[in-house]
Parts: sequence; structure tokens; C-alpha cells
Amino acid sequence: MIDITPAQRFETCIEGLYKTFTEGFVTAPVETLSLTFEGIPGDRHAGFTRPSGGREPWYTRGTEIRNERQITILSPDDLAEAAKGMEIDRIEPEWIGGNILLSGVPDLSYLPAGTLIYFESGATLAVQAMNGPCRFSGAEIAKHYPGREGLDLLFPKVARRLRGVLAWVEKPGTLRIGETARIQVLEQWIYPAAE
Amino acid sequence: MIDITPAQRFETCIEGLYKTFTEGFVTAPVETLSLTFEGIPGDRHAGFTRPSGGREPWYTRGTEIRNERQITILSPDDLAEAAKGMEIDRIEPEWIGGNILLSGVPDLSYLPAGTLIYFESGATLAVQAMNGPCRFSGAEIAKHYPGREGLDLLFPKVARRLRGVLAWVEKPGTLRIGETARIQVLEQWIYPAAE
Repeated sequence: MIDITPAQRFETCIEGLYKTFTEGFVTAPVETLSLTFEGIPGDRHAGFTRPSGGREPWYTRGTEIRNERQITILSPDDLAEAAKGMEIDRIEPEWIGGNILLSGVPDLSYLPAGTLIYFESGATLAVQAMNGPCRFSGAEIAKHYPGREGLDLLFPKVARRLRGVLAWVEKPGTLRIGETARIQVLEQWIYPAAE
Repeated sequence: MIDITPAQRFETCIEGLYKTFTEGFVTAPVETLSLTFEGIPGDRHAGFTRPSGGREPWYTRGTEIRNERQITILSPDDLAEAAKGMEIDRIEPEWIGGNILLSGVPDLSYLPAGTLIYFESGATLAVQAMNGPCRFSGAEIAKHYPGREGLDLLFPKVARRLRGVLAWVEKPGTLRIGETARIQVLEQWIYPAAE
């Protein structure tokens, strides 16, 4: 029988906000980000449901499933470590489809499923899973380093466990750059009993 | 830096299916259970969203939040252990609002958030969290043991970590008694990269 690990709590701050404006997954900076139960309105990853893809090999591609992957959250430290591993100057969050850049969370990519992120402005996000880096993101990074060969395939190797987490909106709201958030991690997530 | 624990896999079988037919949370047996993205149609816990309650003391009561608590999953072993601890003959899943009784999963109540349960018939459930036993369920159990005092308050004490898990519908379908399911547990849940 496993034992319950006490909750870990972090204070964090929004360093950047981004959304998609084009057909692709690349995002662009915004000052505020409105979140509804469907995610970011108008964003390519918005919706209560979504078709499954290569990340869900256990389903036939295109199977309609609940959308738990609305928002991409990244950390400056993880991005810097991935860039160092690739021997490049930097990786900008928008190149790989980031929506929220959060500072101050050690090993952000390891936040376990079910972790709740409470933003000062009232919105709450729930973590689905660590993201797996893919060569499509690697190809976007490569565009910024035209002198380098093979960065597209290097990214999936180097950025494993550094590519942030996916989350869904538990409580809607509007995020602002510079606002703080509290993160509550329980290794074994337990809901309190009703009072 | 934590290490990744390899996946644990279980084979399980549906021993019983139940849904609500009245205003209260008590359920009644059914042969099949249809699941949509909103949960069990017509059930009191159905919906894409729900108002927060005593289990979310971090929100003002009645705050509209995403509904990750659609389905209650219980295990015969956990129920038997709770009954033993309360010195009663048995606890039936429907008394405490169970929807699915799954056999063959050791420590079912400990299945971590993000665990996926793939049913043979095609539906998939995603685990939100271990459930916390409350005195309201205790009071329903007490109705079946009229000679005993204090069972309502004993249940929350004894059934801690034995009250099953809550889940939402990731992929809709219709469950049938006797069908099998596969459960995939990753201590640290990681999505594969897109191919």
C-alpha cells in the first residue's frame, strides 16, 4: 500500500501569454488570454472534444474524444535546458505552440495529472499530462537556425521531459501577463469529503 | 528529479452497473450503461460543467466548474474492507452512489489521476481522483442497519482510501455487465509524441 505524499505548493508568475492566429500550431504573444470551458476561443486547440491523433495510438485516428489538451504550459527553465541540449541560443515559447509561460516552478514538465493551477484573476487550469516533444515542433525551431542541420529530429530527443504540460480549463477567466498563480501538487490526488 | 515508473496494466471486469433514478445520489442496478461526453444521460452527475460544492472548498459554493466527477467507480474488495471495518455485513455499491463495480484491480481507490480505463465495448474513462467518503453516504448505509448507531460518521473514518475513484468520459460508448476492461496506470503520466 502506497503512502500519501504531502501536498507540494508553488507560487508562480505568468511571464508570457500566446495564442494561435494562423492555421498552424505556432502562437503569437498577447497581453491577456480569455479562457472558457472550451479553452481559448478561436484557438486551434479549443473545444469540449477533439479528434484523436498520433498521440493517441490506442484509438483509430480521428476518433472524437474529450479534449483534455486545450492549453500548453511551458517553463523558461525547461526551454533554456532544451536549447542548451540542442546547442542553440534559445527556444521561444511561441515557436512550439506555447500558450502560457510560467516561471518559478521547478521541473514544471513533471507536474502530475490532476494538478490544479489557481490564477490570481480567478481562472483554474487542471493538468492532463506531460507533453511529448515532436519533430513538427523541432522543424519550427529549425526555421530560426537556418545554418544548423537536424534540429527537427534533435528536439524530440533532447526535450523529453522538458516540453511542459497540457491542461484544460476547470474554471474560466482572463489571464494577464504578470499575474501570480498558486500550484497545488498532490502525488496522490485526493478530493476532500463533502462537508 | 523523479524517475518515471513503468506502466502498470490490469485486466478487469464489470461486475455491476448502476445509475440514479431519483433525486438523491442512491443508484439502482441496470444491465447496460450508456455514456456520452456529459456522463450518464439523465443522471444527477451528468454534464460538461457542474456547480462546485463542499468538495471544492477553494471555490465559492455554486461556482460553475468543468465536471470531472461524472462517474463513480467502486471495487468489491474495497467495499468489503470498509464493511469489515464498520463491522457490518456488506456495503452495496448503489447505497453510496456507485455507477460501475470493477473487479480484479488491487487497491482500485489508489488509481492515480489521469489513469485511462479502456472498456472492451469501446468506451474510455479517465480517472479524476480518489473519492473522499462522506457522512451522507454513511447515512445511506446506516438505513440498512437500523440496529446500529453512528454508522453515518463511522463510514468517513473507516472508508478513507476505500471509496473508489471518480472519472469522466473520454470516449463515449455503452457498457455491459460482464465485459472486460484494460486499465493503464502510469505513475507519471506521459503522452507519446505525435508521429
